[in-house]
Amino acid sequence: MEDQITQVSAQVTELAYALDTFYFLVMGALVMWMAAGFTMLEAGLVRAKNTAEILTKNVGLYSIACLMYMLCGYSIMYPGAYEGGVFGSLATLGSGLLTSADNSAADVIASGGDTYYSNLSDFFFQVVFVATAMSIVSGAVAERMKLWSFFLFAAILTGFIYPVQGFWKWGGGFLDAAGFLDFAGSGVVHMTGAAAALAGVLLLGARKGKYGPNGQVNAIPGCNLPLATLGTLILWLGWFGFNGGSELVVSNVGEANAVALIFVNTNMAAAGGLVAALLLSRVWFGKADLTMALNGALAGLVAITAEPLTPEPIAATLIGAVGGLLVVGSIVTLDKLKIDDPVGAISVHGVVGIWGLLAVCFTNPDASLLAQLMGIGSIFVWVFGASLLVWFLIKLAIGIRVSEEEEYEGVDLSECGLEAYPEFSSAD
Amino acid sequence: MEDQITQVSAQVTELAYALDTFYFLVMGALVMWMAAGFTMLEAGLVRAKNTAEILTKNVGLYSIACLMYMLCGYSIMYPGAYEGGVFGSLATLGSGLLTSADNSAADVIASGGDTYYSNLSDFFFQVVFVATAMSIVSGAVAERMKLWSFFLFAAILTGFIYPVQGFWKWGGGFLDAAGFLDFAGSGVVHMTGAAAALAGVLLLGARKGKYGPNGQVNAIPGCNLPLATLGTLILWLGWFGFNGGSELVVSNVGEANAVALIFVNTNMAAAGGLVAALLLSRVWFGKADLTMALNGALAGLVAITAEPLTPEPIAATLIGAVGGLLVVGSIVTLDKLKIDDPVGAISVHGVVGIWGLLAVCFTNPDASLLAQLMGIGSIFVWVFGASLLVWFLIKLAIGIRVSEEEEYEGVDLSECGLEAYPEFSSAD
Amino acid sequence: MEDQITQVSAQVTELAYALDTFYFLVMGALVMWMAAGFTMLEAGLVRAKNTAEILTKNVGLYSIACLMYMLCGYSIMYPGAYEGGVFGSLATLGSGLLTSADNSAADVIASGGDTYYSNLSDFFFQVVFVATAMSIVSGAVAERMKLWSFFLFAAILTGFIYPVQGFWKWGGGFLDAAGFLDFAGSGVVHMTGAAAALAGVLLLGARKGKYGPNGQVNAIPGCNLPLATLGTLILWLGWFGFNGGSELVVSNVGEANAVALIFVNTNMAAAGGLVAALLLSRVWFGKADLTMALNGALAGLVAITAEPLTPEPIAATLIGAVGGLLVVGSIVTLDKLKIDDPVGAISVHGVVGIWGLLAVCFTNPDASLLAQLMGIGSIFVWVFGASLLVWFLIKLAIGIRVSEEEEYEGVDLSECGLEAYPEFSSAD
Repeated sequence: MEDQITQVSAQVTELAYALDTFYFLVMGALVMWMAAGFTMLEAGLVRAKNTAEILTKNVGLYSIACLMYMLCGYSIMYPGAYEGGVFGSLATLGSGLLTSADNSAADVIASGGDTYYSNLSDFFFQVVFVATAMSIVSGAVAERMKLWSFFLFAAILTGFIYPVQGFWKWGGGFLDAAGFLDFAGSGVVHMTGAAAALAGVLLLGARKGKYGPNGQVNAIPGCNLPLATLGTLILWLGWFGFNGGSELVVSNVGEANAVALIFVNTNMAAAGGLVAALLLSRVWFGKADLTMALNGALAGLVAITAEPLTPEPIAATLIGAVGGLLVVGSIVTLDKLKIDDPVGAISVHGVVGIWGLLAVCFTNPDASLLAQLMGIGSIFVWVFGASLLVWFLIKLAIGIRVSEEEEYEGVDLSECGLEAYPEFSSAD
Repeated sequence: MEDQITQVSAQVTELAYALDTFYFLVMGALVMWMAAGFTMLEAGLVRAKNTAEILTKNVGLYSIACLMYMLCGYSIMYPGAYEGGVFGSLATLGSGLLTSADNSAADVIASGGDTYYSNLSDFFFQVVFVATAMSIVSGAVAERMKLWSFFLFAAILTGFIYPVQGFWKWGGGFLDAAGFLDFAGSGVVHMTGAAAALAGVLLLGARKGKYGPNGQVNAIPGCNLPLATLGTLILWLGWFGFNGGSELVVSNVGEANAVALIFVNTNMAAAGGLVAALLLSRVWFGKADLTMALNGALAGLVAITAEPLTPEPIAATLIGAVGGLLVVGSIVTLDKLKIDDPVGAISVHGVVGIWGLLAVCFTNPDASLLAQLMGIGSIFVWVFGASLLVWFLIKLAIGIRVSEEEEYEGVDLSECGLEAYPEFSSAD
Repeated sequence: MEDQITQVSAQVTELAYALDTFYFLVMGALVMWMAAGFTMLEAGLVRAKNTAEILTKNVGLYSIACLMYMLCGYSIMYPGAYEGGVFGSLATLGSGLLTSADNSAADVIASGGDTYYSNLSDFFFQVVFVATAMSIVSGAVAERMKLWSFFLFAAILTGFIYPVQGFWKWGGGFLDAAGFLDFAGSGVVHMTGAAAALAGVLLLGARKGKYGPNGQVNAIPGCNLPLATLGTLILWLGWFGFNGGSELVVSNVGEANAVALIFVNTNMAAAGGLVAALLLSRVWFGKADLTMALNGALAGLVAITAEPLTPEPIAATLIGAVGGLLVVGSIVTLDKLKIDDPVGAISVHGVVGIWGLLAVCFTNPDASLLAQLMGIGSIFVWVFGASLLVWFLIKLAIGIRVSEEEEYEGVDLSECGLEAYPEFSSAD
């Protein structure tokens, strides 16, 4: 009978492992779906003549992110058994290649449930996060950057720059040791993407015609707002996986409750962000600006990502709402500074990412403002600095900006050799 | 050894709770995705000049629904511990605010599995249902209603009107006691949305040019049928969550079988509805009308929602097919009555919702026609009456219809200050 | 105490059954979502004037597939208790109708876990596979085929042609006995769809204007590349269900690891295929051709489908990359042969499907080249031959091609009586 109990107990441990792995894979699939969200959002917010290229960039960067993270990024970020942390891992890249080896049933049972999900499900979840960070960049540099320069940068960001700072926090590096809190990546993912984007935008310059000689800002409207709205709703859905999966485990009462609370808070923060941005744009500009509303929802999502578990739902709503207000102000301010970000990515993911990291202090008693500031500073300096250097070297080597004529004609024809809407577009 | 068994047994109870909660959250995420379905469907079926506004309405109403249901709707619909049912709950709104408090592991184990999912997962599932009901309204009043009047109504419907009738059935009110059966909400959700829409449409009047002076009906074609098709397929997918999640539990053989049968029946009803509507439109109009086919699929889904568990798959197909036939007839009839519903929402969700509620009597031996009629009558009278009053008061206070010139120019420019397709639309 | 253990053990068996059923349903929902992927992909790659019809075909074929597979396909493919295999099953069609009967808890517990998921969840998973096969056909015959002839063929393929060869492998027929390996259907689903499409295309002929008199090939660009990209990303997401669900079980450590590896390999193969096709098109044509990149991703997915479980992730990437190279070459070659396939479906699903089936031999020690060739030959000969006959009979009876004038005007008006983009399309 002793044997029977041991056997049933082992079965339960296996079942919990299976549930946690399945949960992780489903959440990861939702995060992968965010690639479609960014693609649609960005395709909707650029002009028709640059649409095929932004589509190509998005599907290309996702694929490159998967390849680079498999080849080296994952072993840099989670050096695991490697000696000497991240640099040791860099030195032994070859041996860090992902394999199909996974936990044996015996090991799982022997661990008494401490080993609670498949290693490969962890890789899957992590790899879609990297792609998310890189997706943030493509929108900000849209309508004027060379396609293959962008892909080269994508390989370096996803293979090296992102994993290094990812190791600092999630791989058990110095930021983790210092008490920096970033639950699902307001900093590690979103601010990282925004910092890399900012570096690119500064070197690239604004689109022709965006800023007039006397300081006026010319609106360059997106060509397909239903796609931008669809993209936002895809991201909203995907974010349940992004935040919900970051709990990493669901298989007992406490953890299941935690995942449920994260779903609720993620949803409420997005709703709060959207309503706040819509109201502010109505008051400020006199119109219910749809693109501001969409960016407001995304801002709410970014804001809650650093800590979706400790706030009450009403607090989550407010954290999101502040994000929604900030994003409207930030978009207007960046335009005053002539920093041209066609989709508002730097505001949504950078400015609001910082807000999210600071807001952790309001609801999580374990947070310290100092540690949060240290995390923000470290990640920003590293990602912005490294990205600036890489963009600069690419610029020297092969250039990063298309010619003035190509920009005028649209990058679709010069880069991709086809048009996104050959029958629709009546003008530029 | 006794201890060991108790411990394993507790672990199993926790694991079942985790599976049920996770299932509930995944199903809820699919229902949330229906917001994108309604958004794309409606954006595809209006004209280009009114597209940005319908997008704004859809993302706005979803957010407002989340806020209002959190603030008061949920506590009205599920008063739980509150004294005096729904009115007592109304009186103690403040204390009804959603909190992060959830079931403790000890309570779950002590309940022997009777407490089987997280409270917050229940809130998440419920809140996306409310948004679904309100989404139905936006399509019917499209192309002529003021944006902020619509948002005001959305707040009242989702915060008060919907929860009151939701309490009657799902909160344990008098309709539940009377034996009214509505598994996943053909009445509570779909007919409710349609009744509110009908009240608005009657006060609002038809779009300019829809009905000629001699009784002719002018078709106003939707501007983007791929979006309408995408929206329908999103709704089809989301409906697996809508109906499948309404079983509430999946963690044993009988319940897992039930959820599987619900998936099959939901899918077959949609297929039956689509084929029936396509054939009828081919016979009646001589063409395979795509928009009728899409509405046929949605009609099949609405029809099976009142009872997806008791029919055999072949019966589910027929219930859906009758819905598909009804929706074509209803759309034509409403046009004859000069009730202008640009997307057919009143037909799909109202007329077919009633059919679904009646069809319960064919397959569920526990159903009584009287109780079904009582439910239909009660919900319709309450929702239609309350909505008519609210729409009327809003009309008095700030108006509900845009000016004739704004309608001619399109509501996008006047309400949102931007165009959905600035480069494509050649004419209106 | 003995009783207690037995009871807990039974509970665990039920819980595992519930998890496996739920996993199966979620994976099936992802496969159903592939219907939207094919719909958007094909709608994006045809011209505006043929868009409403391709939308109608896609939603119609999905519904017809569901009806036919329920009525007879499922019982042909999985004859189960029927005597005499597939022909016996054909003879007793009436009694093969799907019912809601499912495994009882007692039977599941008595089986000790050998009966591990709901029969109806199996039907749901299988029925969405059939629809996938048929979706492949619609793209290849786009822009010139009669709508109702297409629907008639859809009924026959999904009700008879597909289930017969499906029985050969997955129903336990002679190909299964011969050791033919096809994990999730590179052959059973994808090559089947492609073979049926090829037969149709050969009888149908090329679109007017596609091939010039002197052998030149005229590009006919798709009208909406964001939709084509969205469709590809939907398919990518859905493929996690397609391959991941084909493991059939997830509820222990080994199976959970297997599903995780399948997710990783599926993702890497798609990424490899996309990058390879993008690089080849850059080198060959001088441009980063977006449509080739999209077909490259799909090719990677088709290639890994025959065996997503035995390759290491790096091998999966390479299998996908070879698929991506093949698809570019195949599309160019088919155009040289004047086989007009507007979306490249025959190349993606047929040529690369064969590659996937052969590639099994590289990583699965149980595979034999002979058995793989036998499977490829048997399925192709059966599906191509039967389809050719059926298409031919339909051609004799009611014709398969629209008139020259209808083709010039676009099939939307003649077949569906409406336009997909009434306000956008400036010319054809």
